Amino acid sequence: MNIKLSAIKSGPPDAIATATLMVETRGQSFIEITGEVLRFIGEARANTGALLIFMRHTSASLVIQENADPDVRADLATALGRLAPADAGWGHDIEGPDDMPAHVKTMLTGVSLQVPVIDGALALGTWQGIYVAEHRSRPHRREVVLQFIGDKR
Amino acid sequence: MNIKLSAIKSGPPDAIATATLMVETRGQSFIEITGEVLRFIGEARANTGALLIFMRHTSASLVIQENADPDVRADLATALGRLAPADAGWGHDIEGPDDMPAHVKTMLTGVSLQVPVIDGALALGTWQGIYVAEHRSRPHRREVVLQFIGDKR
Amino acid sequence: MNIKLSAIKSGPPDAIATATLMVETRGQSFIEITGEVLRFIGEARANTGALLIFMRHTSASLVIQENADPDVRADLATALGRLAPADAGWGHDIEGPDDMPAHVKTMLTGVSLQVPVIDGALALGTWQGIYVAEHRSRPHRREVVLQFIGDKR
Repeated sequence: MNIKLSAIKSGPPDAIATATLMVETRGQSFIEITGEVLRFIGEARANTGALLIFMRHTSASLVIQENADPDVRADLATALGRLAPADAGWGHDIEGPDDMPAHVKTMLTGVSLQVPVIDGALALGTWQGIYVAEHRSRPHRREVVLQFIGDKR
Repeated sequence: MNIKLSAIKSGPPDAIATATLMVETRGQSFIEITGEVLRFIGEARANTGALLIFMRHTSASLVIQENADPDVRADLATALGRLAPADAGWGHDIEGPDDMPAHVKTMLTGVSLQVPVIDGALALGTWQGIYVAEHRSRPHRREVVLQFIGDKR
Repeated sequence: MNIKLSAIKSGPPDAIATATLMVETRGQSFIEITGEVLRFIGEARANTGALLIFMRHTSASLVIQENADPDVRADLATALGRLAPADAGWGHDIEGPDDMPAHVKTMLTGVSLQVPVIDGALALGTWQGIYVAEHRSRPHRREVVLQFIGDKR
């Protein structure tokens, strides 16, 4: 194992910028929002700081995953379906057989994410995309809060 | 799919406020702390920024989930019990059969969360509550750090 | 249940410090980076604020877990192997049988973490260590972004 720390860049924060992203979903799927997040970073004139992404729901979540082969997202959905199957004898079933699995999947993948912003760019890796993971079967309107704290260009 | 970005509100940060929440738990359960988090936001005079919630333990975690039907929390506990059963032949068993499953459940659900604060209010969705998830069988005293960075009222 | 909130400490943020940690991994394992994170906190002269840790990959993740008994990490790896086995009939298999399980494990454990910093110290619990979780079988070079926002000593 070898660990190396780079030089540290530093400056004072002078901006908090907040916006809401509305995402219309159409059943279980991963919807990429990287482009909209980049647009927010640009319009907010974000330079260096932390971007918070927050999902305001309990049956849809946020996932950063591979943006190249779409088979990866299909397999991720399969994996979640195995961890939280519809026919697992849930007590909470009044909102349909897809509801409780959606809550479990949301708990396992999470509703808050942070991505560093450096010199006006999201510090994502080459193969990382930001996705809204819709876990319900029917279309939903999902609200995602974007908030940048840092310094401005 | 349809994605829409709202107007961006912006201002400089001028406050970091930090406090510790002590939560006495009584065996495996989800303990809602939304009220105490709101009290912190109020006492810190938080206006707009990011609230960090951090669990200082490795066998209890933080979960944002449905605050309406208590059956949802019961099913979430059932789901975690299936993903990390007590009788799965764990190597680490000196602290009791509930300890290693508690570590796995904590790893899967996480110890750090962030929630945006907008205009003095937590930007939670209507059905979202913030919970301490106790994964051990016996009562524990759990420390949760709350930290707001943003601007003050 | 008993919940108690401590007194609130407060001050303005005046620093953003950013660095990159390079971690050379050697197959599936948990690599502790707590020492390097502490070095960053020291060199950045961080006093009170939030530390963001971000993994720039989709088949390695970040986990805060027990730093005492190494059997815990072995069991955590076993648990992840059961939740995402190599022989589960994945569609995405062109990068080897360990690749898709690595994506699933990364999704379940996450790529962004935040830890509060208080009076120049990481507010980790006694038994908490910060780990890079390598989920691929072969050695990889992993980039982790460290970013502190808060006030400086």
